[in-house]
Amino acid sequence: MSAAILTIGTELTRGEIVNSNATWLAAELTEAGFTVTAIDTVADDQPAVVAAIGRLAGVARIVLVTGGLGPTTDDLTAAAVARAAGVDVVRDESSVLAIRRRVESRGGTMNAGHEKQADLPAGADVLPNSDGTAPGFAVHLGGSTVLCLPGVPREMKRMFLEQVLPRIRSHGESNTHQIVLRTYGLGESAVGLALDGVEAAYPGVTLGYRVHFPEVDVKVHARAAVQSKARELALRAAGEVGLRLGDVVHGEGDDTFPGIVGRALRGRGWRLALAESCTGGLLSHVLTSVAGASEYLVGGAVTYANSAKTRLLGVSEDTLRGHGAVSAEVAAEMAEGARRVCECDVAVGVTGIAGPTGGSDEKPVGLVFWSVAHPGGTVVRHRVFPGDRETVQIAATYAALDLLRRIASGLPER
Amino acid sequence: MSAAILTIGTELTRGEIVNSNATWLAAELTEAGFTVTAIDTVADDQPAVVAAIGRLAGVARIVLVTGGLGPTTDDLTAAAVARAAGVDVVRDESSVLAIRRRVESRGGTMNAGHEKQADLPAGADVLPNSDGTAPGFAVHLGGSTVLCLPGVPREMKRMFLEQVLPRIRSHGESNTHQIVLRTYGLGESAVGLALDGVEAAYPGVTLGYRVHFPEVDVKVHARAAVQSKARELALRAAGEVGLRLGDVVHGEGDDTFPGIVGRALRGRGWRLALAESCTGGLLSHVLTSVAGASEYLVGGAVTYANSAKTRLLGVSEDTLRGHGAVSAEVAAEMAEGARRVCECDVAVGVTGIAGPTGGSDEKPVGLVFWSVAHPGGTVVRHRVFPGDRETVQIAATYAALDLLRRIASGLPER
Repeated sequence: MSAAILTIGTELTRGEIVNSNATWLAAELTEAGFTVTAIDTVADDQPAVVAAIGRLAGVARIVLVTGGLGPTTDDLTAAAVARAAGVDVVRDESSVLAIRRRVESRGGTMNAGHEKQADLPAGADVLPNSDGTAPGFAVHLGGSTVLCLPGVPREMKRMFLEQVLPRIRSHGESNTHQIVLRTYGLGESAVGLALDGVEAAYPGVTLGYRVHFPEVDVKVHARAAVQSKARELALRAAGEVGLRLGDVVHGEGDDTFPGIVGRALRGRGWRLALAESCTGGLLSHVLTSVAGASEYLVGGAVTYANSAKTRLLGVSEDTLRGHGAVSAEVAAEMAEGARRVCECDVAVGVTGIAGPTGGSDEKPVGLVFWSVAHPGGTVVRHRVFPGDRETVQIAATYAALDLLRRIASGLPER
Repeated sequence: MSAAILTIGTELTRGEIVNSNATWLAAELTEAGFTVTAIDTVADDQPAVVAAIGRLAGVARIVLVTGGLGPTTDDLTAAAVARAAGVDVVRDESSVLAIRRRVESRGGTMNAGHEKQADLPAGADVLPNSDGTAPGFAVHLGGSTVLCLPGVPREMKRMFLEQVLPRIRSHGESNTHQIVLRTYGLGESAVGLALDGVEAAYPGVTLGYRVHFPEVDVKVHARAAVQSKARELALRAAGEVGLRLGDVVHGEGDDTFPGIVGRALRGRGWRLALAESCTGGLLSHVLTSVAGASEYLVGGAVTYANSAKTRLLGVSEDTLRGHGAVSAEVAAEMAEGARRVCECDVAVGVTGIAGPTGGSDEKPVGLVFWSVAHPGGTVVRHRVFPGDRETVQIAATYAALDLLRRIASGLPER
């Protein structure tokens, strides 16, 4: 069944806050089997709210509205819904009592602003608020049900879960299934090209792509007569996607790249040390952003200056003079030094030129060497990464993590 | 002048990602003097996109569209705009060349997916993409201009600033002026409380707040008969805001917290070393995300395990045994060790329990000690930060940077 979301607030149309309410509601509705066809946002402006409610009720069977239920003059949702439905606003006495109880239980006294929150469209179903004063409400508008919730995220979420979900759940479709495969190593267009024809070969399957540089997620979405068939279809199509992409796929669903790297290291029983220059701590940060990093990560050094490379990691001054700080030789000595100093099984080294300055004809901005020193030896790779400072730092971090993942997992090095 | 935003993507209508593009564009358009009347989101579904573009072009003079310009089959914005405008899609040869240049400069080879990105509505103005392959474009639709940008945030932002803003700027109202003051150290409600009455004292001024944890930006927005008056009004009100908030204000406009810290260190001629445990590289990463960090940052150590604290920083085993790794004594020895090993003027140490596990009654999750060792001695502070792992890591990073900023700038330590 189709659903739409309307979020009301000038703080949203002015870009002052991110619309996390809409994202949360969209995820909940999708999970419950609804297809969200539109998410609209309008300012605290009555004609705009009236028009949006009327329009959305015409295109979706369920319309969820958040915001504009508060005590101040810019809270106008009840009046707008009443106008869209062609009914009056009336004071709901049971809501007045509930508001009074809540206000007084917190040691306050009821004022006109509180009382205004009980003014609802005539004939509306009241949705009690377990977490605040403003009640929500539901009205029928044409063939659609319009459900209005507060804009305060905590109140909105609780009202949705307690009041809305039980009312709408039986209308959700449960004939779809989605599997997300997470990839690193190919750009979006190369991934798309590799999967050309999959949708045609598996009717009912749609592929979606989500890029969060440098990863590309492939969403395998299947629709069938019943959910068990949809799951089966999604699994078969995801199998085909996995076959085509090979070890470019690093995980599924909620897997994260650093989580996968950590799993590979734990599987090997390897303890890790890090030696970073141009990535400036990003490699450490990415690994330690996942809980449990202390199970395999001993530590490392961020060696920006040459003196730090020598003093913290024992990189030889001759090597630095002879080859320069950005060189395969220094990358290797950084990893080997970190491995030795931290007494680890494996270590990663990264040195390069993140930019925007510091490049030369011979060593341009974006040139990065990364290395892994492990029990079988030391591997060094290099590349010139395009893009700005942040892009080069992220690309270099992932390249180094991927080499580590491949070595720890026994996959071919690339 | 009115503006509308249309964001396209099934990942948005399914609630898989927050719509930060819409928030960013709304803020930029508001700043440029436009009134954003609607922000709509639809799935990657051609009829829905066609309908939304037609409708928004009827209600706003400028429609900004993001998403759906990529190389895969779910990227259908160009075709939808062409249909809404009643024109054909044609391959733009200059864009084919630009895409080829970009792909080949990155060592790739042009494929059919890349080439598809040059298929644009007939008669469209091309908006070159400085940061990716997919060009944007602009078409006239009724009395409205529809401008289509990529969905990748970095590409979208750059194209907006370089291509869109210069085209539309003259249509914005120019009787407003906004000054942004950046703060650290108080929560949003405390900042709001401190500024109570400012709007009343300066008619024409509205204060807005934007939280990006742990910073709170205060937007001083002034409207007057002409822009010179608006600027003057904004400056006076911002002066009042600055007076009330004191050194909680760390910068203005595009200033960043690490940039301000770097400026203070350069002003002192101090070279910096870092010693991190629970922040796991985030402190280094935040400082090195700003170009020019190499002017003051020598390096540092991420010492997760006790052995790394001893071997890399010379923290005494007795101190670790006697006080535990999460202690004021170890925080002090970490900073002093980093300062000594890296031969620096000043060093920062951070040790704590980021969670979610590892806490005890005596040392709960969120307990963090941070220290600054400088020519005048060593200062240590501690706090129990609420929140999840990421929140604790960010809060600890900012607390340590703020102590460093205060010492380097000669402000009172807190």
